[in-house]
Amino acid sequence: MKLVQCSHGGKDHLGLLSADESTVKLLNDPNLPNSAVKLLQLGSRQHVLELLKAAEATANAVPLSEVKLLAPITSPDKVLCIGMNYVDHCAEQNMPVPTEPVVFNKFPSCIVGPSDVIELPSAVTSQLDWEVELAVVIGQKCRDVSPEQAGDYIFGYTVAHDVSARDWQLRKNGGQWLVGKAMDTFCPLGPCITTADSLDPANLSLWCRVNGETQQQGGTAQLVFNCRQVISHLSRSGITLLPGDVILTGTPPGVGVFRKPPVFLKHGDVVECGVEGIGIITNKVVAV
Amino acid sequence: MKLVQCSHGGKDHLGLLSADESTVKLLNDPNLPNSAVKLLQLGSRQHVLELLKAAEATANAVPLSEVKLLAPITSPDKVLCIGMNYVDHCAEQNMPVPTEPVVFNKFPSCIVGPSDVIELPSAVTSQLDWEVELAVVIGQKCRDVSPEQAGDYIFGYTVAHDVSARDWQLRKNGGQWLVGKAMDTFCPLGPCITTADSLDPANLSLWCRVNGETQQQGGTAQLVFNCRQVISHLSRSGITLLPGDVILTGTPPGVGVFRKPPVFLKHGDVVECGVEGIGIITNKVVAV
Repeated sequence: MKLVQCSHGGKDHLGLLSADESTVKLLNDPNLPNSAVKLLQLGSRQHVLELLKAAEATANAVPLSEVKLLAPITSPDKVLCIGMNYVDHCAEQNMPVPTEPVVFNKFPSCIVGPSDVIELPSAVTSQLDWEVELAVVIGQKCRDVSPEQAGDYIFGYTVAHDVSARDWQLRKNGGQWLVGKAMDTFCPLGPCITTADSLDPANLSLWCRVNGETQQQGGTAQLVFNCRQVISHLSRSGITLLPGDVILTGTPPGVGVFRKPPVFLKHGDVVECGVEGIGIITNKVVAV
Repeated sequence: MKLVQCSHGGKDHLGLLSADESTVKLLNDPNLPNSAVKLLQLGSRQHVLELLKAAEATANAVPLSEVKLLAPITSPDKVLCIGMNYVDHCAEQNMPVPTEPVVFNKFPSCIVGPSDVIELPSAVTSQLDWEVELAVVIGQKCRDVSPEQAGDYIFGYTVAHDVSARDWQLRKNGGQWLVGKAMDTFCPLGPCITTADSLDPANLSLWCRVNGETQQQGGTAQLVFNCRQVISHLSRSGITLLPGDVILTGTPPGVGVFRKPPVFLKHGDVVECGVEGIGIITNKVVAV
């Protein structure tokens, strides 16, 4: 199943995107909340999938062109990110592969939708860079779980763009990446959450195109720590993961900052990020 | 005014703490929401203060002993923190005073109340340390404001304990402080928000006692960047501050990690953090 949040007829809805992405079934079952985070708070993945299937039976399908897709998760407690998590991305920067995941984060308010604008705050940064990522959406509260158990806590997967201001990430703010990773609009997500029962994340291709030209082309087989290992690590670091929490799992090689000379995003650029089995998000860069 | 969130008769309420901290007026005005973040979303500080004054007129006072005080802010979008922000705290670690604020953060779910337990996850860290801080609560959405304008966006002030796992902050996670600062229960807040119309933050004393013994004794006159400068900096870093966002402004000298030899918190320790004009929070450390 492909769960979406969307706007239709002036209201926000949960919906199910058809496999060919031509229609959205709007879920108006009064037993369902109208946000994905609230839906996930209702129980286990199995329970939520059953609720969705029941709601689907009475839902009306509308053409995708009649809805606006929103980010499939909004207002989670946490947006976590893993750095240096592709073997080949470590190689492109001549860095050793980490022995433990490197964790940083964005703010919930950084999230924007799959066709929203990425703001380039020109007075603040001149080094805006792209990073396509596979993101995990947590289904149930979890703390101190093993990698073997961790899969049970995954509700599904979405595409994330880990927009980064490299000057802030690498040279400002005393070495702390936060500001360079967490400016407004720096977390486009979408177009849907592909539920974990219908996607194996072990060997997915993912790519990033800027103005139609491929800049990143990678595969999740190159992940240093896979989704289950990342969840286990976080849950064993004193952190409770909550329903709706989003974890960006890292980016493959091909980012702009390591080109010779470096390349950065500018006003008007169009960035497409895609992950096999989920979809593509397309965000235009607008100077503000 | 001293705004609180509290539990009474099995329900959560907004309340006003009396100046002598003996009673709480429970605000049950149907025009008011029952959470501080939702209250602040209603408008300017002036508007919110007027709503509070109107609600106070019809509120019943109950003895403080009959309510449980909760954190005065829960589920904000962001909990921001400023590092190395007291001149004398920089001196104790032989570090130069920063030329720009160093920004890091905690998760909203790290927040606990003024008398709640601080969890010491024994399998995860053995270096739990204390840090008393003055925290600012943002009243209104703000982006790109000057230090002179920034005061208008402050709703009030609360006491924060920036609990820190030093092994994680300083030696693990690739130099990123996040995990060492954002474990569960690492952000006790309270006991109230003293509103900005009744507190000048320029020269407040603040202190931390562990098992009754003073460990930190400082004053906000030693701040490198004051509250208004911190807000201006954040709002000019591409980040929109939202109503209810909490900013911990840094800690004075006296933390455990810089003692010779270092001292850390252990199971059963009781930590009191206080700021003049706001109050004291008292949190017991419990190994989990």
